[in-house]
Formats: sequence, structure tokens, C-alpha cells
Amino acid sequence: MTSVLNPQTMAEKILSRRGDRAVYAGDLAVVEVDQVMVVDSIAQSFIERMTHDLAAMPKYPERVSIVVDHVAPASTVSVAQAQKEAREYAARTGVALFDVGRGICHQVLMEEGLAKPGWIVLGSDSHSTTYGAVAAFGTGMGATDIALAAASGKTWLRVPESVKVTLTGELRPGVSAKDVALEMIRTLGADGATYQSIEIHAGDRFTRGERMTLANLCVEAGAKVGLVVPGGEILSMYDVPEWVYADDGATYVRQIELDLGALNPRMSAPSEVDNVHDVAELRGLQVDQVFIGTCTNGRLEDLHAAAEVLRGHKVSPGTRLLVIPASSQVMEAAMEDGTLLTLQRAGAVLGTPGCGPCMGRHQGVLAPGEVCVSTSNRNFIGRMGDKDAQIYLASPAVAAATAVMGKIALPGDVGAA
Amino acid sequence: MTSVLNPQTMAEKILSRRGDRAVYAGDLAVVEVDQVMVVDSIAQSFIERMTHDLAAMPKYPERVSIVVDHVAPASTVSVAQAQKEAREYAARTGVALFDVGRGICHQVLMEEGLAKPGWIVLGSDSHSTTYGAVAAFGTGMGATDIALAAASGKTWLRVPESVKVTLTGELRPGVSAKDVALEMIRTLGADGATYQSIEIHAGDRFTRGERMTLANLCVEAGAKVGLVVPGGEILSMYDVPEWVYADDGATYVRQIELDLGALNPRMSAPSEVDNVHDVAELRGLQVDQVFIGTCTNGRLEDLHAAAEVLRGHKVSPGTRLLVIPASSQVMEAAMEDGTLLTLQRAGAVLGTPGCGPCMGRHQGVLAPGEVCVSTSNRNFIGRMGDKDAQIYLASPAVAAATAVMGKIALPGDVGAA
Repeated sequence: MTSVLNPQTMAEKILSRRGDRAVYAGDLAVVEVDQVMVVDSIAQSFIERMTHDLAAMPKYPERVSIVVDHVAPASTVSVAQAQKEAREYAARTGVALFDVGRGICHQVLMEEGLAKPGWIVLGSDSHSTTYGAVAAFGTGMGATDIALAAASGKTWLRVPESVKVTLTGELRPGVSAKDVALEMIRTLGADGATYQSIEIHAGDRFTRGERMTLANLCVEAGAKVGLVVPGGEILSMYDVPEWVYADDGATYVRQIELDLGALNPRMSAPSEVDNVHDVAELRGLQVDQVFIGTCTNGRLEDLHAAAEVLRGHKVSPGTRLLVIPASSQVMEAAMEDGTLLTLQRAGAVLGTPGCGPCMGRHQGVLAPGEVCVSTSNRNFIGRMGDKDAQIYLASPAVAAATAVMGKIALPGDVGAA
Repeated sequence: MTSVLNPQTMAEKILSRRGDRAVYAGDLAVVEVDQVMVVDSIAQSFIERMTHDLAAMPKYPERVSIVVDHVAPASTVSVAQAQKEAREYAARTGVALFDVGRGICHQVLMEEGLAKPGWIVLGSDSHSTTYGAVAAFGTGMGATDIALAAASGKTWLRVPESVKVTLTGELRPGVSAKDVALEMIRTLGADGATYQSIEIHAGDRFTRGERMTLANLCVEAGAKVGLVVPGGEILSMYDVPEWVYADDGATYVRQIELDLGALNPRMSAPSEVDNVHDVAELRGLQVDQVFIGTCTNGRLEDLHAAAEVLRGHKVSPGTRLLVIPASSQVMEAAMEDGTLLTLQRAGAVLGTPGCGPCMGRHQGVLAPGEVCVSTSNRNFIGRMGDKDAQIYLASPAVAAATAVMGKIALPGDVGAA
């Protein structure tokens, strides 16, 4: 490891350590890749690149995972065929395969210990920033870059500039990491951190799951990576090397502070993630479908937050509530602790662990004119189905309250059971 | 009620009672319809007929149900649009709507008390013979006939001839109503009871759910209706009028006897339901997907049978096991009694209550060359996806054993946990 002369950000520290020299924003870095993650919808392109264009086997099969999550179980013959090819490729090469129902790629990799502090994790999914929750340099790339990384064990990238986001104060009850993330995106703007590293200084606040929500949404400000400074439960869950932390005096292109104590439940209105409002402003709008799930908010703690609101209540007759746990482990834990039964009794419709209707490919596609409140991460036009459907993004608690009331609502709007 | 001169079968009795004169096989009967059931995939055609062709409101809205089950949650914008129109139609006319996740039409109507002994139930789904489990004259019709029945409160049909199936002896452990049904179809042949009434004399054997399995599969012999003579738990669950029972000396075109004690676990091999073999003959064939669910075998007792085999075991790594409860009530009961947790721990992939991949429209479509063992009711070419996929039909216990072994197996092949 080259000695470091100038103070570095987290991104610079990690990319220096995993490359062969000290690098700074703007430099080109060639780095070791610790994990390459391929999702079902990209698998065919990935396999084509590996097998034909590169004619290469994965250099380190144990560093490659294929996750069948985007359209799982398969909705069409061509989807089924792609998944079949992914299985055959995994069997042939020895890479890991997490099949139908295991869950959403980012959640699964985290559960399987395939993202760790200081690692470089490349995913064929834009929300691969999620791994930043544990200070892994996680970022999304296309099939070609992913294949090159799998074949060579390395990748190259321009070292991103960093934005420092410092969280102060404490959240009030009913306000969650999702609200923090949405407020962060609003503050930065949808293209406010393009190709930058968002370094989130959260102190000891937030569980791993909440940190995943924060890191996950960084890409919605255009970020290359979202790194949450290790603290709190991360320190007891992982060996965190000293070299992942930023140096004092590191260079940031922008620094913002968010006072958590001033934050109300937030919601992204159509059709940009940074179109963020207080839920109170949007309250009362009739809602056809509520979706609780995704890599953003489909974890056990998210289901707990929803169940707390739904317990003893019923989903409004004019509204559908879809609940899709982020993984089989989340599903099992929610069965064991009674959360799933609470949701089921309230009238929730449970779905197979995976991405569900997040990108409009099955399991809850929206019709023209329909309104959906979703705990997911994108409300672009046509994202969940028809271009004339409207998507509002919110926390699980707000989503649950909306399901009970049949219109956009705050948890406090739901009376005691 | 006209006096009856000649002895009548069950079908003749019910159609006479619900019409205005005594009718016999071959007669034309005009009868009151007690329930008209419309599924999501036919809803648009039904609404079009009602609204435009007939320009009529449902004569008795309380006798019409729409069930969103065939592709639920919606897999495409056009499916979502059709379901939206069904919701709007229900709201406008006052007919019942059972929305996404409530479950499969036949199971839902049964749970909701919308099929009773002696009723005429018309469904826009071929497996509407299922209602014969409770001695309702249940039969499938197309959108036009269904709409005429909804508009007029009546339907007309040619009175079917009857086949009498008498069950004798007792099932051995590990043999189920599904095996009886498959054996019955084999004996009759896939077109062996075309437009006939299969009248099943089961004595006090079988639960309501098992009787649903028997009646459900009658259509696979081409039958117009499958009527199970009320007995056993049916007598304590329903008021069964004397006039549903056949008279002594009624005329049957064919009479067969099935000795249950001689029956082994059975399986329909591709690609006809009547291509029935002992499971032992097919044992060992590699299986890609196992599907436990559908109106044939997605009830609590079916999940119990599967859980008994799966408890303490794991689904074979090369095989996917999809479990889709037939209704939200089944789902909830299976959560409450721990069945779902047993299945989840074994590696089952749970899906939203509904038809699932049964007709190949989502949630587990098969790729070319894949082999599926399914508890459903049809193994036709292309039924669950690609035309080069192979479907074997079996009982939940055999399906579960197959999932554990990764190849066609008997429950006894699965070692003690």
C-alpha cells in the first residue's frame, strides 16, 4: 500500500486500498473487485459477454453471484428461458446462484455476507449503492463492465468526488430512515450528486437495514456510490478496518447538514424522486394500490413498522395492499414473530420475495390513471406500469396508514384499534 | 314443482327443481341461476356483453361475483386495465368483487357460501364443476352465456346424461382424493364423459375440500358437471334438501366402480390428463419445478399433506418449489397453525393466493425443456409456458416428495427427518 500524502474521503480510501496506489477524485483507479452481482434480467447479456465476447471463465467464481429476483417467479417463457440459462451458467462455472424466492439481490448479498466494509461490490442493478450501508464501495454497472470484472477480477473507474452529508439531531416518532433519504435527495436534487460519492455521517444512528435504505437511495441523486460511515450496530456486526474511514481534512465538493429533529414524514410525488413534500401536504388523495417492499424498504423492520400501523385495522375496501418481503429470511422471520399474520389479517396481499412490481414487470402492474403509494425508490413515468399511473414514494409506516385510510395519510390518522 | 313420474339422476333432480318442469337427459331445461361467477380474464368480455350487446344490468346483483384470480396481482398494463374495469363495473352495479389476493374463484365462492346444495352455479371458468362438491350444479360457460344468465337470472341447457361412479373400499395411507380423481379420469378417458354428469357416490368419505378435488377434475373427462352425493361432513356443514339426491332406478349411461383400497399414488404424464400412471413407474425423472396450489389442490389440507412430507427436509437444490394457497383464508389458517412456516423453512417459495402459474400466465412460467410436477388439473402442451415443457399432475404429498428428492418420488422415498 502506497503511503497516503493527502487526506482522503471514504471513496478515495477504499479505492486506494483496493488498487495499487493512492488515488484522489478525478484519478483513474484500477481496483480488485470483491463481488460481482448479476440479476436475472441482465444474466443473458452477461453470459453472452462472458461466453462469446470475452470467451472467459469467471476469474474467481466465488466472487460472482447471480440472483433471480427481478421477475421471479418467471412471468413469461422468455423470462423463464433467461433464468434457465442463468442456472445452467452457474452450474457450469461454480458461481453462486440465488434462485426464485431467495429475495432481492442487495438484501440477499447482505444476508449472505457478500458485502463487507472496504469491499468493492459491482452489481448489474442501479441500486447497488445499497452496499454502502456497510461501507462497501457498491455501484451499478452494465453487463459489459460487469462481465469484464468477472473475467479479470478487476474493474477501472474514475475516482468520484465526494459530498459530505452530516446528520444531526434525532428523528421524532413516526419519522424513518426513508424520510431522511427522501429529504437528502430533495436537498441534493435528482442530478445533484451525479457520479459523486455521497458520504453519510450518521454517527451511531440507524440499523444496518436503515443504512441500506439511505445508501440505496443515493443513486437517486445520481451518485456513483453512497457510503455510510460505520457506526452503531455495524461495528458489532462487522470487522471494520480503520482504512475505510475518511481522513480529517479530506476534500468534499459539497457539504450539507440534515437536522433529523426537524423532519416530518416525507413523500416523493410524481414523477421525480426529488419532488419531495411533507405527507401532510398530499394527504387525502385517493390511492388504488399500496406496495410495501423492495430493496429500499422490504426488510423485517419495515414490515414491523407497517404492522404497527395495521394491527387491528383493515385495508380500505377500495385499496389493494401488496406486501413483498425483501428475502426468504425476512419472510421467515416475519412468520416466526407474527408480523406476517398481523399483515394478513389486516388484508395485506403477500407476494413472493423479490422485486415485485417495483419496475412494472409483474405482480402489481398499474393501470392507466391508477395511483400507487410505494416504499420503493423510483416514481418515474411508467415505472410501475402505465405511463398515466402515478407513484408516490414513502416510508412503510406512511404506506400502511395510506392502505388503511384508502388515501394518502399519516400513521396518526389511523385510530387506535 | 311438477310431479316426477320417472326416477331421476342428481342432475335431473336439480335441473327439474330449479326449472318449472320435470326434465330428463336430452330435454332442454330453463333454470334459475343462483350464482354467476366471472373471473378477471373474462371480465372485459362479460362487461362488454352486458353493457353493449345486452344493454342490461344484472337482474340480481347479489347473484353475481367477479373474482380477480387468474393473473393476480396484474402482470401487465392490459391485465391491470381489465381488472380496473372489473372493479369499476362491480362498484357501478353492486355485484360482489373479490379482488387480488382473495384467492381462486372456486375456493372463494365456496368459502363465501356462494355455492350450496341444489344451487345452479355458472362460472366463466371450466373448473366450475368444483361446486358439485356440495351438490351444486356447477358448470363453466363462455362470456356470452354468462352475461345472458346475469342479465336474465336464468340459463338454458340440455339436461346431461349421467355416469355413476361408485367408490368402494378405503384409501391406504399416502393415497388421496387427487389420486382417486386421476384414476377416475383414466377410467373414463379425457372425452369419456363429454357433456355428461358424473355422479360420484362416495358415501361419507372425504372432506369438502377433497370433494372439491373430485368434482373439479370431472371436467377433465369432458363432463358438464360433477356431482358428489352429499355425505360425511357435507351433511353437518349444509342444509341438504332431499330433492338433490338421485332416485332409485334413475337412468345412467354408464356405471363404474373404483376400489379405493387398490389405488396407489397416481400421476398424469404429459400431455393429457387421462395419461395416468402409478407414480412408481415414473419415479426418478429429474424435475425443475414443483407447484403446489390451484383450485384442485391448494387448500389447507393440501398444504398439511405437503408439510407432513417436507417437515425437517429441504427442497432439492436443483428444484424450485412454489406453494400458492388457494385463498387468503387458507393462507391465514396455514400461518396460524404453523404450516406455512414449515413449508418456508423447507425452502418453499410462497406466492400470492390465486391461480399462480396454472395456466402459464405468470408466477412460474416454464422454459423450454423444463419438467414440472404440479398439483393442478391440466398438463396439456404449453399449458404452463413453453410447448416443450412437460407437466406431470399429482397429489400434494407426491409433489412435496418430488421437491425434496429433486425427481419424481413417493412420500415414502423421503427419509425420516
